[in-house]
Amino acid sequence: LSSPAAAGGHLPGPKGPAPTVFFLSDYGLADEFVGVVHAVVRRLAPGATVLDLTHGVPAFDVRAGSEALVRAVPHLGHGVVLGVVDPGVGGPRRGVAIEAGPASADAKGRWFVGPDNGLLVAAAELCGGIRRAFDLVRAAGLPDTFDGRDVFAPAAAALATGGDPARLGSPFPPGDLVRIAAPVVERRADGDRQVLRAEATWIDHFGNVQLAAVGTAVPLGAVVRVVVPGSGSSFSARRVRSFAELAPGELGVLSDANGRAALAVREGSAGAATGASTGTVVELTW
Amino acid sequence: LSSPAAAGGHLPGPKGPAPTVFFLSDYGLADEFVGVVHAVVRRLAPGATVLDLTHGVPAFDVRAGSEALVRAVPHLGHGVVLGVVDPGVGGPRRGVAIEAGPASADAKGRWFVGPDNGLLVAAAELCGGIRRAFDLVRAAGLPDTFDGRDVFAPAAAALATGGDPARLGSPFPPGDLVRIAAPVVERRADGDRQVLRAEATWIDHFGNVQLAAVGTAVPLGAVVRVVVPGSGSSFSARRVRSFAELAPGELGVLSDANGRAALAVREGSAGAATGASTGTVVELTW
Amino acid sequence: LSSPAAAGGHLPGPKGPAPTVFFLSDYGLADEFVGVVHAVVRRLAPGATVLDLTHGVPAFDVRAGSEALVRAVPHLGHGVVLGVVDPGVGGPRRGVAIEAGPASADAKGRWFVGPDNGLLVAAAELCGGIRRAFDLVRAAGLPDTFDGRDVFAPAAAALATGGDPARLGSPFPPGDLVRIAAPVVERRADGDRQVLRAEATWIDHFGNVQLAAVGTAVPLGAVVRVVVPGSGSSFSARRVRSFAELAPGELGVLSDANGRAALAVREGSAGAATGASTGTVVELTW
Repeated sequence: LSSPAAAGGHLPGPKGPAPTVFFLSDYGLADEFVGVVHAVVRRLAPGATVLDLTHGVPAFDVRAGSEALVRAVPHLGHGVVLGVVDPGVGGPRRGVAIEAGPASADAKGRWFVGPDNGLLVAAAELCGGIRRAFDLVRAAGLPDTFDGRDVFAPAAAALATGGDPARLGSPFPPGDLVRIAAPVVERRADGDRQVLRAEATWIDHFGNVQLAAVGTAVPLGAVVRVVVPGSGSSFSARRVRSFAELAPGELGVLSDANGRAALAVREGSAGAATGASTGTVVELTW
Repeated sequence: LSSPAAAGGHLPGPKGPAPTVFFLSDYGLADEFVGVVHAVVRRLAPGATVLDLTHGVPAFDVRAGSEALVRAVPHLGHGVVLGVVDPGVGGPRRGVAIEAGPASADAKGRWFVGPDNGLLVAAAELCGGIRRAFDLVRAAGLPDTFDGRDVFAPAAAALATGGDPARLGSPFPPGDLVRIAAPVVERRADGDRQVLRAEATWIDHFGNVQLAAVGTAVPLGAVVRVVVPGSGSSFSARRVRSFAELAPGELGVLSDANGRAALAVREGSAGAATGASTGTVVELTW
Repeated sequence: LSSPAAAGGHLPGPKGPAPTVFFLSDYGLADEFVGVVHAVVRRLAPGATVLDLTHGVPAFDVRAGSEALVRAVPHLGHGVVLGVVDPGVGGPRRGVAIEAGPASADAKGRWFVGPDNGLLVAAAELCGGIRRAFDLVRAAGLPDTFDGRDVFAPAAAALATGGDPARLGSPFPPGDLVRIAAPVVERRADGDRQVLRAEATWIDHFGNVQLAAVGTAVPLGAVVRVVVPGSGSSFSARRVRSFAELAPGELGVLSDANGRAALAVREGSAGAATGASTGTVVELTW
C-alpha cells in the first residue's frame, strides 16, 4: 500500500469525459482552504474539473453536510464526491473511499471520499447501495490538521482519473462504516387529527425550514397548526403547492424541490418567523 | 414542444470553443443550490464551463440582479447568460430564453435564460437589441420551487451546446417581456448651480455607492454638496478621477469602472459614511 | 510597448496542459467583480481555467493577502498567480508581472501579476527567488478603479498562454519591488524559561490563530502560558500534535498544516477564546 498521492491513476483518453470531483466542505470561503484543495486535485489530475457543491456547511456539522450531499447527489453526473466536514481530523477516525452503485451492475460505481464519520454514507446509499469501502492510508509525516488537502484530495484525484482503490488503502466491510442517527420523524393519529413530529434538518439561505418528512405527508389544502418548541407560540400554516399561493407574510407548508416537507414564507424567512432552527423537532397537526 | 432537458443539443466539435454558461443568482453560497445547478448544466452539456458572475444578489432583488448583469455583460465572451432571481417561482410568471444581438447581424446572438420578471431585459438590450423571445415549457410534475435547477439550467445547457430554441418553447413578441422601471435620474439647473438627483443602484463590497447617472455628469474638480435623504445631514464631496486623489476619510465623487457616478471613500465605505442604501435618491449640487 | 490586452499570446498545443490562473483578491463574492475577472481571462485565453484561491481577504489588507499566497503557493501546479489587493489603485503604484524560479533553472518560471505593493513578493520568493520584474503598461483611457479587470486580468491571460512579458511592460530591477515588513517574531530565554513573542498573522474560518513562528518553536508536551495583550488575561495551553488531543474547550498550541505555530481550540474558536486578532503580538512562555 502507498499513500494516496502515489496511487497515480491514468487520465481518461482523448475521447473520454473529463473527470469531475464534486466538492463539499465546511471550510467556508474566507480563507484559501478551498482553493488549495482545488489546486491539489488539478495538480494530480490535470484535466479534472472540481465542482463546488457548497463550502457553507456550518463548521463541524457532519449531519448538515450529510443532508446537503443527500439533496445534491441525485443531480450529479459522473464523478467523485469529495466531502470534508471533519471534527475528528488528527484523531483515530478513518479516512475512507466508498464505492456506491447497484451490486449487480456492470457499470462503474460512484466514489465518495472523506472522513469516516457518517458524512458520506447516506448519500452513497442513495446511489444504489454501498459496494466497497477502503480505509485510506495516511503517509507518515503529514500534518494532522488538513486531511482535505493532504489525504482526501489526492485520493479523490486518483479515483477520478481511474486509479486503483486498492492502492489507496485496505478494504473493510461497509457495515463497519460510521453512521449517524436518522433525524426524528414520527406520525400518529390523535382522534380525527393527524400529528406529525419532524426534525428541522436545514434552514436555507432564504429561510425555508426543511423537515425530515416527505412533502406528501401533509395533504394539499390542509390547514396546519405548527408548534415550534422553545419559541413559546404556535402558528397556523396552509399546505400549498408553491410560494406563489401564499399571501405576503403568510406561513405555508409545501413539498420542496427535494420532495421534503418544508415551512415557507413567500419572499420571507420561515426560520425567522417561527424561531425554528436546525435540530428543532416541529409538531404539525391537521 | 418538449421540456428543456429533452431539447438536447450537440456539443461543439473538437475545434470549436467550449461552451460557457455565465451564471448569476440570489442563491447565496451557504447551501448547495449553486453547486447543483452547475452539476445539472455539466451533466447535460459535459464540455461546458459554468462561470459564476455572482450569487450574492440580495434575495428576491430583481433590480439588483438586473444592474449586476448590465455591469457584467460588456465583459463577457461567447456564451449563455443564466440569471435566476425569481420571487415569482411557482406562479404564473413565464420562464424565458431571450436572444440578443444586432438585427442585421449574421453572427449568432447571445442567449439569456431565466424568469420573465425584468431581470434579463436590460442586459440583453445592451447586446445589440432583443431579436427573439421564447416562453419555456415546463415539464409536468416538476417541483414548483427550484426552476433554476429544473427549467433554466437545462435550457441554458441546451442553448450553450447549440440546441434549437424552438424545442424549448414557443416564441412570443419581445415587446411582451416584463420590464422593470428605470432608476431615478434627473438633472436641472438651479440658478447657476447644477442639481443632479440620482438613485443609488448598488452599494458594493467596499462600500462604494453607485448612482444611476453617468460618471461624466459631474465635472472633474467640482466641489459637490451631497444630500442623502433620511441620514439627516449633508456632505461635501470632491469630484476626483480616482480613490488615490482622496485624503483618508474624505468623501469623493468619481466615475467608476462602469462609467457611472459613484460616491467613494478612500479605503473606506461611502455607504457607511453617508447612510445611503440601495434605492436612496441622492441629490448632488455643484 | 502595448497594453496587456494586446500582448496576445498563443494557446498551448493540443497536447499541452490547459493554462491555469490562480486568483486571489479582496473583492468578496457579494458583487460580480470576481465573475467579471474570470470572464476577461477566459475571453483572452479561451482554454484557461481560473482557479479561485480566495476572495475573502479583508478589504485592502495587503499583508493578509500576502500571507494567504505564501500558504497556498507550495500547493499550486503550473500556472499564473493573479493577486489583487489594491488600496492604491488609480494612484502612482506600479502594476507588475514578476517571474519567480531558480536562477539557474532551464524550466519556465512562475508568473505573479498584480499591484506592486508587497502582495506578491513573499510568495514569489518561495518559488525559488525572483528572476525578473516588469512594470505593466496601462493603456490610456482605462478606468482608474478596477485594474484587476482592466490591467491585471489581461496580463495574466497573456502570460498564461505564453505571451511575451516584454510586450506587457518594461523590465526593472527586482530589488525595486515594494516589500512589506515581516511580522514580529522574537525568541529569548528568561532564566530557565523560553519566551516567544509572535504576531498573529491569520485567524481562519474556524477561529484558529496562526502565529508568525514555526510550529517546532514550541516543544511537544510543553505547557505554555499565553498572554494576549489587550484581552486583560492570560491562558494556559498545551502543546499538542492535533486538535484531537485536546479536551473540548481546551486551548492548545500546535504546528498547523502550514508548519506554523497556532493557537487552537477543539471544535471551537481560539480567536474568540483568547481575544487575539490579526496583528496582535502574542507572548508564549514555557
